[in-house]
Amino acid sequence: MKKLINDPANYVDEMLDGLCLAHPGLVRVGEDRRAVARSTPMPAGKVGVVSGGGSGHLPLFTGYVGEGLLDACAIGNVFEGPTINACQDAIAAANGGAGVLCLFGNYGGDKMNFEMASEFAAMEEIETRTVLGTDDVASASVAESHKRRGVAGLIFAYKTAGAKAAQGADLDAVTQIAQRTVDRTRTVGVALSSCQIPGAAGPNFTIADDEIEMGMGIHGEPGIWRETIRPADVLVDEMIAMLLAERPQGTSRVAVLVNSLGATPFEELFILYRRAAQQLDEAGLTIAQRLIGPYVTSMEMGGASISLCFLDDEIEALLAAPAECPFWRVG
Amino acid sequence: MKKLINDPANYVDEMLDGLCLAHPGLVRVGEDRRAVARSTPMPAGKVGVVSGGGSGHLPLFTGYVGEGLLDACAIGNVFEGPTINACQDAIAAANGGAGVLCLFGNYGGDKMNFEMASEFAAMEEIETRTVLGTDDVASASVAESHKRRGVAGLIFAYKTAGAKAAQGADLDAVTQIAQRTVDRTRTVGVALSSCQIPGAAGPNFTIADDEIEMGMGIHGEPGIWRETIRPADVLVDEMIAMLLAERPQGTSRVAVLVNSLGATPFEELFILYRRAAQQLDEAGLTIAQRLIGPYVTSMEMGGASISLCFLDDEIEALLAAPAECPFWRVG
Repeated sequence: MKKLINDPANYVDEMLDGLCLAHPGLVRVGEDRRAVARSTPMPAGKVGVVSGGGSGHLPLFTGYVGEGLLDACAIGNVFEGPTINACQDAIAAANGGAGVLCLFGNYGGDKMNFEMASEFAAMEEIETRTVLGTDDVASASVAESHKRRGVAGLIFAYKTAGAKAAQGADLDAVTQIAQRTVDRTRTVGVALSSCQIPGAAGPNFTIADDEIEMGMGIHGEPGIWRETIRPADVLVDEMIAMLLAERPQGTSRVAVLVNSLGATPFEELFILYRRAAQQLDEAGLTIAQRLIGPYVTSMEMGGASISLCFLDDEIEALLAAPAECPFWRVG
Repeated sequence: MKKLINDPANYVDEMLDGLCLAHPGLVRVGEDRRAVARSTPMPAGKVGVVSGGGSGHLPLFTGYVGEGLLDACAIGNVFEGPTINACQDAIAAANGGAGVLCLFGNYGGDKMNFEMASEFAAMEEIETRTVLGTDDVASASVAESHKRRGVAGLIFAYKTAGAKAAQGADLDAVTQIAQRTVDRTRTVGVALSSCQIPGAAGPNFTIADDEIEMGMGIHGEPGIWRETIRPADVLVDEMIAMLLAERPQGTSRVAVLVNSLGATPFEELFILYRRAAQQLDEAGLTIAQRLIGPYVTSMEMGGASISLCFLDDEIEALLAAPAECPFWRVG
């Protein structure tokens, strides 16, 4: 697997430098500069919204720092959680005196380091809350949904929490809307091909030329089946059925994210979206918002995920609220 | 090469259906529905701006239909020019009574079919002009620059022509700004891996696991060298030197497009941009606008291109003018 990189040891730092050069609204902060914050000062009295995770998933995580979305983001090495220091730096950057929500995927290392960083923040009189993304239906049963991984659907919670904070809501209210968005969001992905961690000897996992894996995680975590590839419509029908099996009662409107895991091009995303829209229409659901493109990737991994956010009036309004962010692009 | 598709025979139509479902501002038009237009009526008295080309390059071509950009676009099968009918349909959809500019890449089939369609348009009293994208410096020498292919840099001309037409300029003025933008835009790409046309038995071209090809075209046309992969900074230095070799006298400002050919992820684009920005700074050029992402792709092809648009005051202002388009995203 070929990559347009220099020394793999410099991969993350060079990527972050390029990101911040390209987007002057973003700036690296902290002693080891492994947090990214907005370049404008944190507004006093505004609740901060922070995320974090490993590199290799752009636009996730750092790409979603922007007005009406994240205030800061801690970033680790490729597929590794951010350090405690990076989490502290992100929390400090997002501190406007009204508390900070830490909103990130349900992974052990990320949880541990954000927990430690939150304890240090408490010593500095910064109040924090935590909400974990748990949208991946393939990663645990509904009965054990607290064990589920956070994948692409996390960005819906970024948007609602960010918009709520921008409106001047307090920490409890921002935390509540983030948790409710997570609770109403489901994702399932299908993987076609692997990616490779820079500097690694080989691909992150192997898969036969004619095989795909339904439900694989964004770091190659095992899915629910691996079989011969089948037509896109058949895959979409299975994926939508899995997502609708957990449709909250009384829901009539959804936001849809058809996400490329990396190498899968727009053409295929639109073929998937076409079928997903037909299926949602047949299920009596109105699509209020659509995001189609590379939003949460695993570098050059082939495949796609579909996320549904089952809307209520407040979530729908917050998703539609304005945001200034290089990568949050609706429709 | 695995793809998330159904019957390859339906690939283009299903993709276009999904695109227009996802973006309600776009609508398929014409008897065989192989043109895409804005869903709002063409404003009377406005010059129309039309493009066209083969499928497999999204967001190019159809993705750039939108206010302040293209009014309509003809679309062919994968890597095949649009039919004469499709070109006629696009011209008809973009006819507001003030003439239509046909702005597309310098490829034989596209030229022939747009030429025929323009003759038919003339019979219906629609005046047309043609400007060809010729930005690929690797495809012919500067002495034979009229033979150069049009690649990613074409979108700068979309933007200036679209903005100029939106301001109410006449057909001559819109044609002139498009031509001047093409004349001041240069692109070079580097290919890492092939794509596959849906339904084809194998990849579009073969390349060894450790090789890359400098200057390869977006359909796999031969480049200028094929050798072992080298570090990103070395490649960027070579690419920027090729582009700056044709820098117009007196230019001090540029727009930069670092474009993924498909599978190459954002992380690598930012690593490339970082070095490109350093080199441009050393050359005394100020970056006035940056576009970094998948703008002109070849499905799942690996690699990237760098385009420079050497600005004058008018081009810079038109590039910065507002546009309503799902894929034109600056910064």
